[in-house]
Amino acid sequence: MDTSTPSYDTLTQTFSRLYRLQHLQSIASWDQAANMPPRGNEARAAAMAEMGALLHRMRTEPQLAQQLERAESEPLSEPQRANLREMRREWRQSNALPESLVQRSYMATARCEHAWRTQRPANDWKGFLGNFREVLAIEREAAEALSQQAGLARYDALMDRFEPGMTSKTVDAVFGDLRSWLPGLIRRVIDKQARETLLQPKGPFSIQAQRELCERVIRLLGFDFEAGRLDVSTHPFCGGVPEDVRMTTRFREDEFLGSLMGTIHETGHGRYEQNRPRELLGQPVSESRSMAIHESQSLSFEMQLGGHPGFVAQLAPLVAQAFGTQPAFEPQNLHRLITRVNPGLIRVEADEVTYAAHIILRYEIERPLIEGEIEADDIPALWDAKVAELLQLDTRGNFKDGPLQDVHWPSGMFGYFPCYSLGAMYAAQWFAAMRRATPDLDARIARGDFTPMFDWLRANVWTQASLWTTDELVRRASGEALNPAHLRAHLETRYLS
Amino acid sequence: MDTSTPSYDTLTQTFSRLYRLQHLQSIASWDQAANMPPRGNEARAAAMAEMGALLHRMRTEPQLAQQLERAESEPLSEPQRANLREMRREWRQSNALPESLVQRSYMATARCEHAWRTQRPANDWKGFLGNFREVLAIEREAAEALSQQAGLARYDALMDRFEPGMTSKTVDAVFGDLRSWLPGLIRRVIDKQARETLLQPKGPFSIQAQRELCERVIRLLGFDFEAGRLDVSTHPFCGGVPEDVRMTTRFREDEFLGSLMGTIHETGHGRYEQNRPRELLGQPVSESRSMAIHESQSLSFEMQLGGHPGFVAQLAPLVAQAFGTQPAFEPQNLHRLITRVNPGLIRVEADEVTYAAHIILRYEIERPLIEGEIEADDIPALWDAKVAELLQLDTRGNFKDGPLQDVHWPSGMFGYFPCYSLGAMYAAQWFAAMRRATPDLDARIARGDFTPMFDWLRANVWTQASLWTTDELVRRASGEALNPAHLRAHLETRYLS
Repeated sequence: MDTSTPSYDTLTQTFSRLYRLQHLQSIASWDQAANMPPRGNEARAAAMAEMGALLHRMRTEPQLAQQLERAESEPLSEPQRANLREMRREWRQSNALPESLVQRSYMATARCEHAWRTQRPANDWKGFLGNFREVLAIEREAAEALSQQAGLARYDALMDRFEPGMTSKTVDAVFGDLRSWLPGLIRRVIDKQARETLLQPKGPFSIQAQRELCERVIRLLGFDFEAGRLDVSTHPFCGGVPEDVRMTTRFREDEFLGSLMGTIHETGHGRYEQNRPRELLGQPVSESRSMAIHESQSLSFEMQLGGHPGFVAQLAPLVAQAFGTQPAFEPQNLHRLITRVNPGLIRVEADEVTYAAHIILRYEIERPLIEGEIEADDIPALWDAKVAELLQLDTRGNFKDGPLQDVHWPSGMFGYFPCYSLGAMYAAQWFAAMRRATPDLDARIARGDFTPMFDWLRANVWTQASLWTTDELVRRASGEALNPAHLRAHLETRYLS
Repeated sequence: MDTSTPSYDTLTQTFSRLYRLQHLQSIASWDQAANMPPRGNEARAAAMAEMGALLHRMRTEPQLAQQLERAESEPLSEPQRANLREMRREWRQSNALPESLVQRSYMATARCEHAWRTQRPANDWKGFLGNFREVLAIEREAAEALSQQAGLARYDALMDRFEPGMTSKTVDAVFGDLRSWLPGLIRRVIDKQARETLLQPKGPFSIQAQRELCERVIRLLGFDFEAGRLDVSTHPFCGGVPEDVRMTTRFREDEFLGSLMGTIHETGHGRYEQNRPRELLGQPVSESRSMAIHESQSLSFEMQLGGHPGFVAQLAPLVAQAFGTQPAFEPQNLHRLITRVNPGLIRVEADEVTYAAHIILRYEIERPLIEGEIEADDIPALWDAKVAELLQLDTRGNFKDGPLQDVHWPSGMFGYFPCYSLGAMYAAQWFAAMRRATPDLDARIARGDFTPMFDWLRANVWTQASLWTTDELVRRASGEALNPAHLRAHLETRYLS
């Protein structure tokens, strides 16, 4: 090949091939959630496992190590060098764990997660513990192996899979800050909202009308339906591939806001995916930066914009058009409905204000759990104490709405939870930066002009993909490192002023 | 491995891996037709091509030749030996053509098929010829290579890809028989039907009601919706995997019979797929026997059963329930609508009686075309003459409803067309055998009892998969080789008595 970067070029070809094969995995995975009939499950699982093994073999082929080494000394441009950094990251993660450990982890989490589906409704903490102790032991083993290889603390090594560069030192600092003012803020907001009149919408809300409303709002938010879809699944998500983004939602006839706001959330993920740099697709540098940055997009849409009084004023007539006029659909009341704060036991149902409390408590349990400072048997008591402290609620003996409520732990996804609240902080930080760049941002949102928001996110996040480390991306976009003060200011402005 | 069949066992593992990876290809392929938004096309095509290349490499790995050779002398059971025969067949087909020829064929047919999509509506035969000459040259080259390897005539070598064991000698014989009585039969049926009163149903027919009717009929026909779906696509087909069968249809508000009968057709394919032997899935011996045998299932459902007066009497009240009562929905009139014979230019719209004429004319052109006896420029004159002779219609200058109407030739699918009419013959032969096994078959169908039909097909076709050659399967099932007399008897009974 007539080029001065032969090893780099070979690597780009390998990663393009991986990208194309992963395309089929992504579509099949979406299909599994949105379409697949129950009896198709076993064959699909076998197909996905076969493909997973094949991709793993491709990512661990011995010559990759040499090629990565040689490419380091080739004359690369800045984006090429960023791509090489991300290639190395992907390679390191695929090669980090012995195959036998990967296999054991896969088996243990599959067993634990499968049993959890029935143990949760049965409130069976004891039954769950039987499987979960094994999952924990294996994930600790993985954390130890990753930790030695990456020179990180064990929990940080697990978190690094989802949030590269993030450490528990940083999380401790920002969650410590959050913890100092959040419980007080929650109390003040509840007091304030208790004095407000709130009208509940009257249903039923036809699924067809809800679907049309969601599609209309998705279009308003700039999602390209020529390169994506909206379908239904039990657990809403955004999947597919950047060229063909598959968002899902779920509908209930008695309530429409959950589906509508959930759809706005997924649209944030969807626009990030649709606007990753076209010319780099297939290369690791084109991937979304991290889970927290991804969540910062969905929360920019759902919370920063979705709960913005100017946006809600745009939404109100569309809601009335969809379901007929009701007093509850008046802009002010609709805004109260959307921003209602109500401490509850369930994370996925939590509002914008109390959500972080759910994350803090999980982080404060899963970090010492992985570091070996506490054991699985210690979870319930810790959970009860933290729910009482952070949310003033009682969860004793109620395991199904306590530590059994999330899929993350039975699936071995330790280190993921912080991304949710980091995402909320980044989203607030983006909007603070946007307001500096566009001083009349709020007035423009109130006029239905979302262009400044979309342009800012496109320029600073979507098209930047993985060209920079997360810290670099955040500083370039907002002029400072991660700063939880923006989330505090946002919540105080929206909920107390 | 502690076994006396080590090579055979290794082969079964390789074929299981291929099966699992093809699962993802099948689902992605269905998704492409049923869901994929337009801008997803390019990335999908690249993903499918990458997967195709990967599967091809797996099927042509050098050690397979040795393993197949060694397995021949291992102590195999009868089903294992049948599996080895089918493995060898798959292997031979994958290894038959030089990679460069496969590549050239892929490029030429993709170009020709893509241009054809606009050339057809533009009636542009001359433009089409430019690409088509190249396709023909390449397919002749492939036919020559396959012919030398398999010891078959060139056309037969192409047909063998779809219909293993079928030769043009047999097709000549059975189509020759058909040709001797079909034109006369068509004339007599038209005369007879011209004297019958026919009421046209009054629309519109709501898509929702059509969908519910189709799903109800599909259930009635025993399709398992826990292991499959019905969706919408431009060109109806039955895809997916045997564990998760994906059928499609299309709906028009002004006409419901096309969709309903099309759905019954796909249900025949679907039940074959759902009932291939579970314990052998993943192995080549579990595959459907051939394209004609597959078509014999869809035509058993759509034509043999779907046009059966006893079945139509069952269908009539369901139609009335779906769209409201109309005189046109009375059983006798509905039967007349379903069995109406009307010679036309378009194959895919043809009725049960005239359909074979379309196939005969295509076969009589594509066989000499591949054998080099005629050239692409000769097609229009031959087409005109045969349409006049077989259907008494004039197609001169009307290329779009003539030789430009099918996707098969621009796609290089020579040797496929005969399968349609062979399928119709097999279907008639199955029903003749069923009536011998169950003398009151027609009375039971009229009572809505389709069990004897399903049981016979399950025992003789579905679960037999590729355990036998097609000829063996046909003889075991019906006691004789392919015999076109059964189709003639069926058409005469249904349309003239």
